[in-house]
Amino acid sequence: MKIESVDFFYLAMPEVTTEADGSQDALVVRVEAGGHVGWGECEAAPLPSIAAFICPMSHGACRPVSDSVLGQTLSEPADIHRMSAALAFNSMDLLQAAHTWSGIEMAMWDLLGKARGVPTWKLLGYEAAYPKVPYASVLFGTTAQGTLERAKEMRGRGFRAAKFGWAPFGDSLEGDIAHLDAAREGLGPDGILLIDAGQIFGEDVDAAALRLDAMERNRVTFFEEPFHGSAYGAYGALRDRVKTVKTAGGEAAHNRHMAEHLIDFGRVGFIQIDCGRIGGLWPAKEVADYAVTRGVTYINHTFTSNLALSASLQPFAGLKDHVICEYPTTLKQLAVDMTTNHIVPNANGEIVIPDAPGLGVDINPDALTQYIQDVEIKVAGKILYPPSRVG
Amino acid sequence: MKIESVDFFYLAMPEVTTEADGSQDALVVRVEAGGHVGWGECEAAPLPSIAAFICPMSHGACRPVSDSVLGQTLSEPADIHRMSAALAFNSMDLLQAAHTWSGIEMAMWDLLGKARGVPTWKLLGYEAAYPKVPYASVLFGTTAQGTLERAKEMRGRGFRAAKFGWAPFGDSLEGDIAHLDAAREGLGPDGILLIDAGQIFGEDVDAAALRLDAMERNRVTFFEEPFHGSAYGAYGALRDRVKTVKTAGGEAAHNRHMAEHLIDFGRVGFIQIDCGRIGGLWPAKEVADYAVTRGVTYINHTFTSNLALSASLQPFAGLKDHVICEYPTTLKQLAVDMTTNHIVPNANGEIVIPDAPGLGVDINPDALTQYIQDVEIKVAGKILYPPSRVG
Repeated sequence: MKIESVDFFYLAMPEVTTEADGSQDALVVRVEAGGHVGWGECEAAPLPSIAAFICPMSHGACRPVSDSVLGQTLSEPADIHRMSAALAFNSMDLLQAAHTWSGIEMAMWDLLGKARGVPTWKLLGYEAAYPKVPYASVLFGTTAQGTLERAKEMRGRGFRAAKFGWAPFGDSLEGDIAHLDAAREGLGPDGILLIDAGQIFGEDVDAAALRLDAMERNRVTFFEEPFHGSAYGAYGALRDRVKTVKTAGGEAAHNRHMAEHLIDFGRVGFIQIDCGRIGGLWPAKEVADYAVTRGVTYINHTFTSNLALSASLQPFAGLKDHVICEYPTTLKQLAVDMTTNHIVPNANGEIVIPDAPGLGVDINPDALTQYIQDVEIKVAGKILYPPSRVG
Repeated sequence: MKIESVDFFYLAMPEVTTEADGSQDALVVRVEAGGHVGWGECEAAPLPSIAAFICPMSHGACRPVSDSVLGQTLSEPADIHRMSAALAFNSMDLLQAAHTWSGIEMAMWDLLGKARGVPTWKLLGYEAAYPKVPYASVLFGTTAQGTLERAKEMRGRGFRAAKFGWAPFGDSLEGDIAHLDAAREGLGPDGILLIDAGQIFGEDVDAAALRLDAMERNRVTFFEEPFHGSAYGAYGALRDRVKTVKTAGGEAAHNRHMAEHLIDFGRVGFIQIDCGRIGGLWPAKEVADYAVTRGVTYINHTFTSNLALSASLQPFAGLKDHVICEYPTTLKQLAVDMTTNHIVPNANGEIVIPDAPGLGVDINPDALTQYIQDVEIKVAGKILYPPSRVG
């Protein structure tokens, strides 16, 4: 099979706000080869990611992503690895390339799975896929009362675990303690409580550490992204100051090295990988393998559609002991509408990873037209996007 | 002063090839505030970098670079630091943002220097700027004979040091040895010989190590980027196998953490920073300070215009013992034409960092029109670039 086309669909809600909600827009990727179709999603700014696919070459190591993809053979996993290596070299100096490639790579695994009639996790080398315990991934309330209500709501919806994140966390110590107490109260004594600081402490280890008492008293399982994603020193320093809570991070990794370094040098207890950023499913699977050897727990990072969710579960589908998974529960309508089927907790409250060809999630063509943001890019008088097609 | 405008000029040669020559195009940035003008240059793919400035927001942590810049106060260095911190948070999930911001940040230092009538290196905290010994930065010849001739040419032009880089290095061991011998022969016994592998060995430490004997015999001072920029493990492993040659890297760092990690975990002897990628002059200065504390030598990475060259020298202008600097010698005509003045070696063969306000390099307005690549970007029927101006 040869890759015949790679198409991007930039979708957005009518209104996009500064809320830390990644489901307000989406960049969906369709790859076609040998009569088969695969779908992926970049967890990335859509316009720069499209630009990285079609931009004019700057030099031999700053080439558009398309140069390493279009017309290539795609018949087996080795072809994906080959393109990934070519891209790393050809687009070495094009920073956005990793985000663009992530959605394409994902779509290729979906396509190969469909072509062979097997779920993608089998192609990645797993014999079986084990159910995961979803944690409801929600934002903090604007007040502690709001957080309490959101926690109760998640518990009422049957979630055994919930993660609260972002603003107003970090605004004040008193406020943060109130939110932590509220989250624990609302979730009940047996709930698994997780906290995401959204990098609010920069590199300020002392400021992050001030929250540890309240976290440990409230039996927080992990404290996610207290710091800038590359601040391994700060992660390591906080690790030395915790008693029971573990640190977590990794969503910003745009290659597997960065995730492995966060494990080795930041000494996180949980490594969180976004397949829509790290370069797709294979580097994520490599990180999962690495995490196992280091005694670190792998988790998906997903705050967008069910397509991204399914993709994000594949790299650790076969890791029986890596049990919890991120599960977005307050998706914007576009992310709901984007797929015709949805991954929902079963009667045990668990997420069963699709046992269907590819990623097992079907794209809703109506959503692609309803939410589409048409993009046109011209350079030096030539339309580079959308690309013209012959025939 | 308020930032009134940020304008991009995407310049390109009539023909851009796969040659590893970064001077084939350029993304020049002009910042205007309080009646002053500053200039910078992103060492980045122009189109995705422009897109990162003007793209629609995806969510609160994936905002366009413009959101952290336009309308901001720019009166002193602290304003630049504030914007840099805001950008790191507001554009956390927009990968290309660091490259876009780099040129803007550079232009702000140029502007502040001009507004105060002092060279930028003084604003960065240095009392004096020391001359540097330039190394001619050239590509290997296609044959060993070509490398020999290029080395002789550089020696004939008075260079005491030269760096040879990229293809065909890495193609074969025999070929590489012939190129190394040729470079040493052409440069003469006293020349400082540097080698840049352009990441060709990926993570293959053994393959890179096979070249060490010929490097040490030819008294190579540093072996640059044998591996992927993030492969600290491979850098560290090669470090354990060298006798006299030092390793070098860092040009891909898009924040100061990455450069510091390459020092700490990759244990390079030379840290090479591109101000057009790392987030501008200030993070580069921070890396220079860090390098001093770690006994590592700081060097600029520059393969584009004299504007970028001047900018790249500022962060280590005052480090008397960090002597050599990269000096591109085979610039494409656009990079030559881009500035009306040029930084050339003095009678001692040294580079004197401009002692003029700001970066001390003047932009040639004719070049901005001669090489311009007009860009137009429309999303959902609205022209986002070029931005419309009122008044």
